[in-house]
Amino acid sequence: MRGYAEDKDAYLKRLRRVEGQIRGLQRMIDEDEYCIDVLTQVGAVTKALQAVSLGLLEDHLEHCVAEALAEGGEVADEKLREANQAIARLVRS
Amino acid sequence: MRGYAEDKDAYLKRLRRVEGQIRGLQRMIDEDEYCIDVLTQVGAVTKALQAVSLGLLEDHLEHCVAEALAEGGEVADEKLREANQAIARLVRS
Amino acid sequence: MRGYAEDKDAYLKRLRRVEGQIRGLQRMIDEDEYCIDVLTQVGAVTKALQAVSLGLLEDHLEHCVAEALAEGGEVADEKLREANQAIARLVRS
Amino acid sequence: MRGYAEDKDAYLKRLRRVEGQIRGLQRMIDEDEYCIDVLTQVGAVTKALQAVSLGLLEDHLEHCVAEALAEGGEVADEKLREANQAIARLVRS
Repeated sequence: MRGYAEDKDAYLKRLRRVEGQIRGLQRMIDEDEYCIDVLTQVGAVTKALQAVSLGLLEDHLEHCVAEALAEGGEVADEKLREANQAIARLVRS
Repeated sequence: MRGYAEDKDAYLKRLRRVEGQIRGLQRMIDEDEYCIDVLTQVGAVTKALQAVSLGLLEDHLEHCVAEALAEGGEVADEKLREANQAIARLVRS
Repeated sequence: MRGYAEDKDAYLKRLRRVEGQIRGLQRMIDEDEYCIDVLTQVGAVTKALQAVSLGLLEDHLEHCVAEALAEGGEVADEKLREANQAIARLVRS
Repeated sequence: MRGYAEDKDAYLKRLRRVEGQIRGLQRMIDEDEYCIDVLTQVGAVTKALQAVSLGLLEDHLEHCVAEALAEGGEVADEKLREANQAIARLVRS
């Protein structure tokens, strides 16, 4: 079972909202809205995606990584290594 | 005419691709794909949006801000102040 | 004259404070302070440097780039291209 | 013992180098070096600090959080909650 399983519907709802925001951006550009207003809206979408990323990471640490650490050994080391790489990608994005 | 007018079709094409990627994320979560793989894909979408933001900002500086600066006076000051605030929001997001 | 010339003393003062914060971080690590507290302090230093970057960029746009745009032609194009690259580096850092 | 204990000397060495870079920035500003060159150097310092943060976080997850998770219960929950908040601050900085 995935770390995000319990929050699956909430993630799907958030991503459908982001999808709508992206279509809204297309309309803004299609209707020649002011550059700064379009930029501000792109920023809002980026923030929403950042929150999804942090939620997924939190769920992953609290379930998948926690379970692997309870098991210990090579499984735990690999899971931590993988989580640290995902955190680094997120921080550097 | 907006700074991005010449690149309008390219921006619309990129945003339609992002829209497709967001639907792809919904599928990944719906099909219980591994958390790290979903996270990596969210990172790809964030990067695509960041590139859209930088493109819009570049077009804005090269057209709207450049024209205002050629005009000078209060119009130029206000346009620069506004651009600097947009840059700060982008950097801090 | 550099865009930041008028704010030179303020930048030097801010950077001396950052220097002191870096020495403070060394002390924290030397005295085995808790990881999260050290991390929080690194975040404070990063934020202070981000503000210095945004200030320098603002001064550069309002002086060096504005003057080049008033001049127009190849000088202006090059100065805008350079500023856009600096903004992209800052956003991606 | 802190998660970073084994890497203490390496962290101190890296922070002394950052301290030197900050003094270098002060010299650049004092000697009126070009804005973009100063900005580029601030970016290099920010990247070095980001790497220190990621290292500290990695050490913390692999030692402090791993030990707490092996213990389980309220101690583990609190340690994970705290780590997730630190990750969120780092991502949003």
